[in-house]
Formats: sequence, C-alpha cells, structure tokens
Amino acid sequence: MKLSQIGELSLLEQIRRSFKKKSHDIIVGIGDDAAAIKPIDEYLLATTDMMVEGVHFDLDFITPYQLGFKLISANVSDIYAMGGKPYYLLLNIAVSKDTTKKFIALLFNGVKDAINLYDTVLIGGDLSATKSGMSLSATLIGYGKKCIRRSGASIGDRIYVTGSLGDSACGLELLKKIGSPVPIGRRKKREKRKEKNILNSELQAINAALSGPGLSWREVEPLLVRHLMPVARNPQNLVRDATAMIDISDGLLIDLSRICNESKVGARIYIDNIPVSSELKKTASYLGISPMKLALSGGEDYELLFTAPAGKKVKAIYIGDITKSERVIVDSSGRKKTFSAEGYQHFA
Amino acid sequence: MKLSQIGELSLLEQIRRSFKKKSHDIIVGIGDDAAAIKPIDEYLLATTDMMVEGVHFDLDFITPYQLGFKLISANVSDIYAMGGKPYYLLLNIAVSKDTTKKFIALLFNGVKDAINLYDTVLIGGDLSATKSGMSLSATLIGYGKKCIRRSGASIGDRIYVTGSLGDSACGLELLKKIGSPVPIGRRKKREKRKEKNILNSELQAINAALSGPGLSWREVEPLLVRHLMPVARNPQNLVRDATAMIDISDGLLIDLSRICNESKVGARIYIDNIPVSSELKKTASYLGISPMKLALSGGEDYELLFTAPAGKKVKAIYIGDITKSERVIVDSSGRKKTFSAEGYQHFA
Repeated sequence: MKLSQIGELSLLEQIRRSFKKKSHDIIVGIGDDAAAIKPIDEYLLATTDMMVEGVHFDLDFITPYQLGFKLISANVSDIYAMGGKPYYLLLNIAVSKDTTKKFIALLFNGVKDAINLYDTVLIGGDLSATKSGMSLSATLIGYGKKCIRRSGASIGDRIYVTGSLGDSACGLELLKKIGSPVPIGRRKKREKRKEKNILNSELQAINAALSGPGLSWREVEPLLVRHLMPVARNPQNLVRDATAMIDISDGLLIDLSRICNESKVGARIYIDNIPVSSELKKTASYLGISPMKLALSGGEDYELLFTAPAGKKVKAIYIGDITKSERVIVDSSGRKKTFSAEGYQHFA
Repeated sequence: MKLSQIGELSLLEQIRRSFKKKSHDIIVGIGDDAAAIKPIDEYLLATTDMMVEGVHFDLDFITPYQLGFKLISANVSDIYAMGGKPYYLLLNIAVSKDTTKKFIALLFNGVKDAINLYDTVLIGGDLSATKSGMSLSATLIGYGKKCIRRSGASIGDRIYVTGSLGDSACGLELLKKIGSPVPIGRRKKREKRKEKNILNSELQAINAALSGPGLSWREVEPLLVRHLMPVARNPQNLVRDATAMIDISDGLLIDLSRICNESKVGARIYIDNIPVSSELKKTASYLGISPMKLALSGGEDYELLFTAPAGKKVKAIYIGDITKSERVIVDSSGRKKTFSAEGYQHFA
C-alpha cells in the first residue's frame, strides 16, 4: 500500500501510537505544535544531521530498517562527541507519495531499535511529500555535565581513537560489488532464519562478482555491519580526561584536521598505531584497495577521536601526539609525510 | 558562482562567520559536533518543520530571501503556539551543487532577518548536496513558563483567533497569476527603490493576466506579504488566559478540528465573526474565489487559534464557542452546517 492511499494524518497517528512513551520528564510528546520537556540542570546539547538519497545513501545498498537505524546513530555520535548523553529526538522525513507503507514501517523499526539502544525518546517531527528522492534529518537534544569541544587540545596531549578505522568504507565497497541491500539487522527470529539464507546467497554473489578465492562471511559481516548499522561510541569513561573530542564521520584525517584547526595545534600520528581490523586487511587487499587509505580517509566509522594529557591512563588506542604546528604521518621506518584534510566534501 | 566551485567547508566557514553571535548562554555555537547551551529553568520546547521544493514552495513564486524568512517564521509560530519564546535554531539545507552562491547568500539573509526579528540565535545545522530539488528544515528550541497544549479546551470556552484569515492563501493565488517571484522584503534602501519599480511592472502583469479593471498595489501587497513573509504572532498577552492553542498553518477548520480531537470537545463557529480583510474580500472576488472558503480552509496564515474561559477579557477576535461534540459553522441567518477537517494533507 502506498502513502498516497493512506494520507499524512493517518500515518502520523500510527507513528504517534507506535512511539508513545510514558516518561515523567516529557510533558508534551509527539502531536502538538512543539514538544515540552522538564529541563535538566546540565549543559543542553543540540545537533542535527541529514541523510539525502543519492548523496548519503543509495537504496540499492541499504534497507529502510538500516537507514532508520543509521540516521539515529549518526546523530547520537555527535552528542557523544561532546561528552554528552542523548535524550530527545525530532525526525523529519520527506518521501515521495509512491513510497510504500511497508517502507515507512521498516524505516521506523530501525529508528525504534536505535532509540531503544541509546535510551532516547522520539518527541516530534515532520512528514512531507517530495517531488522525487528522499530526504531524512534528525535533530537530537542531549545533556552533558561537561562539554568537550574540538578546541581543547594542547601541545603534548596524546591522540586516541576508540576503535578500528576504515571498516565502514570497506563495507561500502563490498556493497557496491554486491549491488543489492544485505538485510542485516532485523530482530525477529523468524526473519533471522530467512536472513541467513539470503546472506548465504548474497555471499555467493560477492564471490561470483569478485571471481576470486572467496571471502568468508565471518570477515565480510563485521564490515557490512559497520557501514549499515553503525553503533555510536559512548564516551562515558573518557569524559573525565578528554581535552578535545570529535566523532570520525568524514574520515580520520579530515576530522583530526578539524581538531587541529579549532585547537590551533598540529598533530603527529604513527601509521603503525592506526587500528586496522584483520577483516579490513583481508577484504581490502582482496578488493585491491589499500587498507590504510580506507583507515585514514574513509568516512562513517563513528569512532571517537580525542585528545588527553600524556600523563592520564586512557582506555583507548593511542595513535599520535598533538604538536605545535606540523601535521604529519610517521611511517614504520620513521619517515614523516605531511597530511591535509582528506575526506568527503559536499558540492565539491 | 556555483556551490560546486566553493565546496562545503568554505561555505560553512562563511555561514559560521556571518552568524557568529556572542551570547553568554551559548557555550558552543556553530562549528562543533553539537551546540552547548546553559539551561534555563523553564519548560524546554522543541519543534521542527520542513519546506520541500515543489511541495511547500515553488521557486517560480518565492525568492530565496523570502524562503529563508518564511522557514523561520513557520517554526517560531509553533513555539509561540505552545505559549513559549523561541531561543535557538538549527538549520538543515539540502540543495543541488548547481545552486549559486548568491542564492544561498539571499536565503541566509532571509534567515538572518527573521532570527533577528524573533531574537533567536543560529546554533548549528547541516548542509548537503541533493541529486535534484531543494529541501530545507529548521528545528527550533524554546522555553516557556507554561505550556499551552491543544488538549486544554473545555466546554463553554470561547474560541479566538489573533487576526484575519485566508490572506496567505489568496496571496498564493495571486502569485500563481503573476507567475514569477515578487521581491518583497529586502531591507536595503537601494534595493527597495529597485523593488518598487519591479513591483509596478509586476502589478501591470497581474492586471494584464486578469484583463479586468485592475487591483491596486495597496490591496495586493498585504496579501502577498502574508504569503511570502508571514510573521508569527507572539502570544505573550494571551498565555495567562489561553486553555488550548494551535497556530493556523493548515487552515482554520483542520486546525480547529485538531483542538477538538485533542480536547475531546466540539466547536461552534459563527461565519459572521470570522475575520476577513477588506483586501481579501476585494481580491478574492476579483479572482473569482470565495473569500470565506480561503478563510476557513486556506493554509499558512500563522495566526494563533486558541480557547479561553468565557469570563476572561481577551484581546483577540472571538469566532465561536467550544461545545460538547457538535462541530458546526453557523451562518448569518442562524443555520448550522457541520464541518470536518478540511485542509492540506501530504501524500493525499
């Protein structure tokens, strides 16, 4: 059934019912002119992120469920990157009237699983038709006792990341080869069984597409998951020590450059310290791509990149040091190479 | 110059510089992962609204300046409709890379004039390319000492509106006849002179298009302004007495039905009490449209529709009464006619 057969008001009512949540701090939720909430006495954090069809996503590669999940993760990651906790979500969805009711239901399933995962609440939004193409955006409101800016790094601070880099970009390369969505991520058991069968045939398709010795699902799956259903990294254990923080959404080098620009410092990173998963190494080489290129410039990893004073014991991966002004990558043999902000830019 | 020649980062930097505002409550503004604000001890209000090309607006009828202004007014109107005050704005702009730098500059001029008018601050947002078409959204965060819901109307309450209805819808009808944007609204004197000349020729175009006895600019201008650059109604003087409130964005009947649905009551409105401007009367009859139809079902007036106990002295226009369940319009001769939610619905 298409949205043109349902209409906006009926769809809104369904969403409202589905996301009804009793929470003592929410005075007015979905369904009024604005949501109203009892305030908390911490810093109020607010962020917004768009996902535009044909630019941020391609429905040939991602399911509506994954899309909904990923939209929320991308926004949560921004609140986490300030050292905060996400609380309230507003959602804007613009789709063509030929979109099916099922598509919207799956999209909202993804949103729902993500907001449950991050313990946030949908408090409002807007639905609209479009002439063509789909455009999604989310605004997330959070709170934090402290806020960790991009501008707080000092010379001598160490640079850390919270996990392996490049996996998401490699997952995208895999999806381009597969050429169709991979239904990772549904929750229900019955669907999981079905999913496994689909996945086996997808995997055969990958191997056929590459006509090589084959990759095992064990290596492929984590990369696909990192791209399709990224999970934002909760900074709870880092907040005390972090001096500057950003999430890696556009690529390590561009996001590290942002910390350098805002903090007015340089950075030296050690190529041997950049965390690269064994799955990435194997799959990237299989695809004929440099794993290190993906790790340095690939986007959408949603790991946190942060700095902390050298004396602090930090549970994260040390990748380099903040310097006065040089911005260099040091290779295995100690040779320095200057880096610049490489990563995705809209309109470029 | 097109955005493809500038790139996202340079554009972002320009916006950031242009909207830099020192405000002691804003700890982090545009340019970090999220904005951070010192909280206020009132109800936190949040709303979001989209404007999609070909659905909410047509660049044949509206200038980028007006579009930017209107996007903000539409969101402010939602915060006002809760009885609140707007504070912080987040903006999402998705445009094709062929969009010119000038278009974006004019759009942001409109945003800037509106946020200055409403005394709000731009604290963040997101920019994206699109494959085709333009999609804008704004999220507005506000505060209110009280929050006036749609659900607060009681039997016996009076129904009020803050101003004349149907003007915006009539303005849109005029624009369809004119077939090109009318550059109302720029601030600079030099441009105003130029504007007046353009307007005179536009007016001749209207008259030519209608091949009738002609409308004067005095009648046409207020209707065009109401559609192109609506100003949201500040409810400051109504907050104390209002029991339920909504802004009229989709049309009086649909928005009154929303109050009835949420409050579980009916409504009786008197056709003789519906405020219709003299400009609307003259222009609508000239265009061959019923002024009352525009006043009852036309959208985007952004007047406030609210209820208050019968005993209260309220400075607004009394249009009817809250009843137990009947939803009727009473005409000049006392005849009742049932009404239903007539107004714009997406996907329908």
